[in-house]
Amino acid sequence: MTRTVDLNADMGESFGAWTMGDDPALLEVVTSANIACGMHAGDWDVMATTMRAAKANNVGIGAHPGFPDLQGFGRRRMHVPLDSLGNLVRYQLGAARGMAQAQGAQVRHLKLHGALANMASEDKAMARACYEAALSVDPEIIIMVLAGTAQQAAATELGCKAACEIFADRAYNDDATLVDRSQPGAVIHNAEVAAKRMVDMVSAGAIITESGKHIPTRIDTICLHGDTAEAVQIAQATRRALEADGVTLRAFEGAPL
Amino acid sequence: MTRTVDLNADMGESFGAWTMGDDPALLEVVTSANIACGMHAGDWDVMATTMRAAKANNVGIGAHPGFPDLQGFGRRRMHVPLDSLGNLVRYQLGAARGMAQAQGAQVRHLKLHGALANMASEDKAMARACYEAALSVDPEIIIMVLAGTAQQAAATELGCKAACEIFADRAYNDDATLVDRSQPGAVIHNAEVAAKRMVDMVSAGAIITESGKHIPTRIDTICLHGDTAEAVQIAQATRRALEADGVTLRAFEGAPL
Amino acid sequence: MTRTVDLNADMGESFGAWTMGDDPALLEVVTSANIACGMHAGDWDVMATTMRAAKANNVGIGAHPGFPDLQGFGRRRMHVPLDSLGNLVRYQLGAARGMAQAQGAQVRHLKLHGALANMASEDKAMARACYEAALSVDPEIIIMVLAGTAQQAAATELGCKAACEIFADRAYNDDATLVDRSQPGAVIHNAEVAAKRMVDMVSAGAIITESGKHIPTRIDTICLHGDTAEAVQIAQATRRALEADGVTLRAFEGAPL
Amino acid sequence: MTRTVDLNADMGESFGAWTMGDDPALLEVVTSANIACGMHAGDWDVMATTMRAAKANNVGIGAHPGFPDLQGFGRRRMHVPLDSLGNLVRYQLGAARGMAQAQGAQVRHLKLHGALANMASEDKAMARACYEAALSVDPEIIIMVLAGTAQQAAATELGCKAACEIFADRAYNDDATLVDRSQPGAVIHNAEVAAKRMVDMVSAGAIITESGKHIPTRIDTICLHGDTAEAVQIAQATRRALEADGVTLRAFEGAPL
Repeated sequence: MTRTVDLNADMGESFGAWTMGDDPALLEVVTSANIACGMHAGDWDVMATTMRAAKANNVGIGAHPGFPDLQGFGRRRMHVPLDSLGNLVRYQLGAARGMAQAQGAQVRHLKLHGALANMASEDKAMARACYEAALSVDPEIIIMVLAGTAQQAAATELGCKAACEIFADRAYNDDATLVDRSQPGAVIHNAEVAAKRMVDMVSAGAIITESGKHIPTRIDTICLHGDTAEAVQIAQATRRALEADGVTLRAFEGAPL
Repeated sequence: MTRTVDLNADMGESFGAWTMGDDPALLEVVTSANIACGMHAGDWDVMATTMRAAKANNVGIGAHPGFPDLQGFGRRRMHVPLDSLGNLVRYQLGAARGMAQAQGAQVRHLKLHGALANMASEDKAMARACYEAALSVDPEIIIMVLAGTAQQAAATELGCKAACEIFADRAYNDDATLVDRSQPGAVIHNAEVAAKRMVDMVSAGAIITESGKHIPTRIDTICLHGDTAEAVQIAQATRRALEADGVTLRAFEGAPL
Repeated sequence: MTRTVDLNADMGESFGAWTMGDDPALLEVVTSANIACGMHAGDWDVMATTMRAAKANNVGIGAHPGFPDLQGFGRRRMHVPLDSLGNLVRYQLGAARGMAQAQGAQVRHLKLHGALANMASEDKAMARACYEAALSVDPEIIIMVLAGTAQQAAATELGCKAACEIFADRAYNDDATLVDRSQPGAVIHNAEVAAKRMVDMVSAGAIITESGKHIPTRIDTICLHGDTAEAVQIAQATRRALEADGVTLRAFEGAPL
Repeated sequence: MTRTVDLNADMGESFGAWTMGDDPALLEVVTSANIACGMHAGDWDVMATTMRAAKANNVGIGAHPGFPDLQGFGRRRMHVPLDSLGNLVRYQLGAARGMAQAQGAQVRHLKLHGALANMASEDKAMARACYEAALSVDPEIIIMVLAGTAQQAAATELGCKAACEIFADRAYNDDATLVDRSQPGAVIHNAEVAAKRMVDMVSAGAIITESGKHIPTRIDTICLHGDTAEAVQIAQATRRALEADGVTLRAFEGAPL
């Protein structure tokens, strides 16, 4: 049996005159790009440039909506009524689809950003509101969910196309939550360690926690980062290690959960 | 021969807690609505509400992109490079299409707003950049142009679907430009006068200037306003007068110029 | 003994082309104006106009900072680190002081807006962070606090000039919190009822709850609204009733708590 | 006679999660910092951090207001009525003063940013509207003007404290305007060349144009940049060369023109 997995990263997080991240390096590594939609980062010009580059690299394009909070980069929790939240997702997904269509490209997936993602991983109703909104714009869109969270539960209920995500550089607790960043070892800084963990988890078909516990899950995609040189190295090492292990890297198809 | 014309108005110009215009009254009168896309007015919630109402009233939905200038309501001229301007239009049109799709509706046309429209009516290259951008998102979209301006010239060159617009409440100079607002008689405040003018122009197939000159033009749509009680009365009177004259009111089909 | 009280209202909540509230009517009634500072409402032009009118009416000028959330009118809870929150308050207060100085006027007090006020009324550390920030800009500024809340506790700790506020149109629980808006009677719509309550509370030097309990408190100012015709009537009736009862209406001096 | 000059640079141009420029390096070189005020760059947190660092380095603090255009970094021309422009300047200067007061620091000067500066250097009425607005907030503020432009003419008319600025890295035409960036040699990239030019101009008390013509002018300050490694080198070389030539580097006092 051929094992395949997708590698994803957030991209297009520059804004106006400000740049962020090493998108060109990441586009050499990942198979899916989560592209900011202008509310927490990204603007129409950044989106156009990023989508063009993603298309040229045969990298799948995703919309990455966040809270309307540029100064906080969408990382501050905001309390938005669910119907308004749905409209916020529709707006950003629509904008992303418009930008993609103009490039002859297509938005394949949607992944929530920052505090919106964190809140939705704890609150199924909120995740569901966001995902239903996305599906109302495009019923075929693939919803990327954090494996083992309320995000996954929401996508399962909806029966929509989905992709389960694990993190390359974060340690897991035994309940599938992430080890808090304040704890030692919560964030993995060593590229080879991170890469080895991903090979092991993909091979096991399970999240492997700090204690060694295996939590079986579908693993469709691995989240990588590109905001530091170290992060790019982790991304590159992870790709090499998976390929060396015989794993095929390609964009997910989004089978329902 | 059956004469038909469309009546259009800007709508969805509320923002957050602030309301503007009498959209419910206008939706009883017009056949096409130009809906703000969040940059100069409108937000995701206002867009959703306005599109739902437009659909319920069988009013054609249009995207009404403007400069990213909430405080200035998109009425301040900004100098934006043409490629960035194109992305700005793509973003707003995409967002509008996403909102419409979620309502089971469709964005049929595009009309530029405020200072963006004014600049594009004087600058064919600028109009063309905006329209090409819109067509790159949706090749079937109908471009609404100010009759007799560089907007019309740009749409003619592009050979795209188009609709020619005249104003119900503004006097025209002999070169088809609008009489400057500082001149007496530039803005028509009397509902019956405005209505009579529209019947005459639609009947003549021409803009009739202050001096009485006829400038032949296709008249596909008449621009109405709803920001004052007077404006709503002009809109209503114009509709009644056209119907009384045997003109069929319905959304334009957008034949190329 | 002469009894005096201040009447305050939020003002300057228009933005760009959008208007809100009946500021001219309120300026005839109140003795202090809480003026939005551009983050949730208000802009530089609205601030200038509102401050000029307040000065002309001998109404005390206050800064009314809120979350940076125009679309949500500052009513959505946001989670902002305390040091950043302090900077946010400093920025808005500074801007308000600049606008006032240009008018030959002065910012006398500060009152938190919307969700920022609600959160600060429950969280003393947050209230304190906001107030310390304001005092770092102007040690003499009068802090307006919701009587009986964490806001009051924070101002008491700081020993700063302060003014205690009660609501004209909201019913109180026995613990000095407001009756939830979902409960019947939570909001008082009858102008004479509201006015009578204020006379009784000012006379008693206490919040009088729904059950009739008296909670002694300093009452320096009464919060009025102007966003509806009803609200303006309540404001006017309250002023008349207090004057008829021999209460002097004038801006607070801000004695420490 | 002791010759003195100030070295200034734009700073605090980061925003939220995005960083820009090498402020720490520049603070070692300059004697005055022009700090963005939140409209085109900078936010309340960036302003606080930058002002604290400027104060710690004994660098004079200036407000650097721009158009409200984050995505365009204030570099896009906008057409704003003069009274609104004045309010925009007052707002930003007030905010800067509030932030400075909270740090125990003071805003000493004001310099216009980007397209606002460019337009004001061509349009005396616009420059005057901005400067009068700043003086209405603080009559003692020092207005930094581009030597030889309408900015200087406006400050001269007003009789306010002022500082005349020349550029370290730009070539001049014989009419004191800058050589267009499209021309060869318009921007000076060699640090030693730039430094030598500044020594010559300060020594001559004149702008020295490409043709060698001397245009006598007061030179109070030299504009340096810090957005590239090259720019920082030019800044450092200029400082070293001036010091070697016996010029004292210190913040200007702002004598009227």
